[in-house]
Amino acid sequence: MTDAIRYELVKQCAHTGARAGILHTPHGSFNTPMFMPVGTQATVKAMSPRELTEMGAGIILSNTYHLFLRPGHELVAEAGGLHKFMGWDRGILTDSGGFQVFSLGDLRKISEEGVAFRSHIDGSRQFLSPEIATQVQNALGSDILMAFDECVPYPAEYDYAKRSTERTTRWAERCLKAHSRADQGLFGIVQGGMYKDLRAQSAAELTSLDFPGYGIGGLSVGEPKHLMYEMLEHTTPRLPTNKPRYLMGVGTADCLVEGVMRGVDMFDCVFPTRVARNGTTMTKNGRLVVKNAEFARDLRPIDPDCGCYACQNFSRAYIRHLFKADEIFGLRLTTIHNLYHLLDFMRRMRQAIIEDRFLAFREEFWEYYPKEEN
Amino acid sequence: MTDAIRYELVKQCAHTGARAGILHTPHGSFNTPMFMPVGTQATVKAMSPRELTEMGAGIILSNTYHLFLRPGHELVAEAGGLHKFMGWDRGILTDSGGFQVFSLGDLRKISEEGVAFRSHIDGSRQFLSPEIATQVQNALGSDILMAFDECVPYPAEYDYAKRSTERTTRWAERCLKAHSRADQGLFGIVQGGMYKDLRAQSAAELTSLDFPGYGIGGLSVGEPKHLMYEMLEHTTPRLPTNKPRYLMGVGTADCLVEGVMRGVDMFDCVFPTRVARNGTTMTKNGRLVVKNAEFARDLRPIDPDCGCYACQNFSRAYIRHLFKADEIFGLRLTTIHNLYHLLDFMRRMRQAIIEDRFLAFREEFWEYYPKEEN
Ligand SMILES: [Zn+2]
Ligand SMILES: [Zn+2]
Repeated sequence: MTDAIRYELVKQCAHTGARAGILHTPHGSFNTPMFMPVGTQATVKAMSPRELTEMGAGIILSNTYHLFLRPGHELVAEAGGLHKFMGWDRGILTDSGGFQVFSLGDLRKISEEGVAFRSHIDGSRQFLSPEIATQVQNALGSDILMAFDECVPYPAEYDYAKRSTERTTRWAERCLKAHSRADQGLFGIVQGGMYKDLRAQSAAELTSLDFPGYGIGGLSVGEPKHLMYEMLEHTTPRLPTNKPRYLMGVGTADCLVEGVMRGVDMFDCVFPTRVARNGTTMTKNGRLVVKNAEFARDLRPIDPDCGCYACQNFSRAYIRHLFKADEIFGLRLTTIHNLYHLLDFMRRMRQAIIEDRFLAFREEFWEYYPKEEN
Repeated sequence: MTDAIRYELVKQCAHTGARAGILHTPHGSFNTPMFMPVGTQATVKAMSPRELTEMGAGIILSNTYHLFLRPGHELVAEAGGLHKFMGWDRGILTDSGGFQVFSLGDLRKISEEGVAFRSHIDGSRQFLSPEIATQVQNALGSDILMAFDECVPYPAEYDYAKRSTERTTRWAERCLKAHSRADQGLFGIVQGGMYKDLRAQSAAELTSLDFPGYGIGGLSVGEPKHLMYEMLEHTTPRLPTNKPRYLMGVGTADCLVEGVMRGVDMFDCVFPTRVARNGTTMTKNGRLVVKNAEFARDLRPIDPDCGCYACQNFSRAYIRHLFKADEIFGLRLTTIHNLYHLLDFMRRMRQAIIEDRFLAFREEFWEYYPKEEN
């Protein structure tokens, strides 16, 4: 099972946990650290696969919960799998649906067997378990599938966090058993809430199951950032160096640089695409809300240093006009910029690691980036 | 003034009025007959300029009324003109705003001087006249600008139609006088309602003013199609053969083929882009509403014979999924398909004219196309 996904370490930073690598998948290889754009419903919102390829996205994330409910994994399988269905020939990682069903609150009920819930689309009764989540992801045919876990909320009592984390381990074993395709790699997910000993326990239990990669879950769920960084420091050193580490749900530049410093290889987040559709763009100086009145006559690009299609061809004034006029091309351009910005940020960070200057890169980043933002 | 736009006749059909030509503009040349995608607010809805270029669009239309109100022609001029503002380096035709302000109904008041109206955006008082409409279009810097005319509604009394048509001639003279840029070509617009003698009178008066091209206005405004075709037959033969003829607001395949047969070279219409955003696609068999339930598991492309990006890469089932899930990429794909479909239709029609088989082309078209549609 471990052959589908293979991590190649290219360079380990001498001063931090940062590392540059290559992840090999059945749909091509991509450089790490990498940010994965999110394509919840089998499309990265407002983008085409071609645009993603051109900006260097090597892998995207799609959501099992959403595809399970609509259009259904059977249809996707019938279409030849998710890659073919959505016209994307590079890597795909699917989450397990766990995070989404736990977020349903009153609409779901958790047992040892799995999670009963009601669809947010039509209210129909549904059920996901480690076995079903794995079978669905096998049907989708993603390159990387994630184990069905329980995301410990923040804050959480110690006893609950412990019971939940131990169940995640039991569920991970069930996922491993249910996983049936040698051309897909199943990642385990380390939980443990904000408790160091539980993080250590979860990491130990999961690594003993020998997954080809590890998600780090239950972070970026409302806790202060210093706490997230602290938990990371207690997790990544406990994960094997020959396997990729994926920090789930994180996608602002500050967390990316701090996560990489602590040994993370992969990230995903809806943030860049979601705020883009609201007229907010990401720059090295923090956010620039291009739809604001101050940019009405500003003929500069969003970011004069950016090489994206939006910045190479269009002005702030034009993009603002598109937002004021409710034109779709406006949010296409901000989405392109934000994703390009993050992918390029990862490329430059990787180059810094390879050239032994990651700490200088980080220092320069913090010179420009607002401390209090996000 | 007539040098900016030059029509080159390549082939005249021996049996009909159909003709193949080339229109030379300051931003490149394009083959005629041509369909012009509509970019009302300085963007063809949901499309990028690059996508338009790739599918062979040689010219697009943009709306003076909308740009005058938002973002304002001064800003567009400051940005270096409409081409630069919207990142489009091929031809642009701007309408005069006349059609839009007349459509405002109670919100506008017509006098010999011009039209007072209230903005549909903020209710502010505005005024457009032949001089102002021309100056605005000069500021926008389109390759082809249209004279400010009054569109005779359907139905209209003879006396009103006559008075209105004669005013359009006087206004056309004022536009010609106001027009100040040698790198733009001003087209006159033939009106006359549904009265043959008024069409003849309007054509005679306008051609005597020697415009570099002629719009045919006041058609496709609610009259039966046979009446539109009849009016065309009384108009195009009265226009000079060395100038292009542009039938305004027409963009369904049946009207395109019938218009071309009667000597029209250029067309525009919001139809293909508007219905696309509602999940309706255009095929040689008429409309295919891809968001309908019947296509939920249909893994064929919208049109198996189509060479567009959507049909080459995505299935009806996938596009329907995107519409059901409210995903922007769905309407991007249907928009791409519909525009490609029409542009390709024009290319094939032109080839038929050149190869002396236009009537056979038309006959085959009507074999597949539903008679009663549209
Ligand atoms: Zn950019
Ligand atoms: Zn197509």
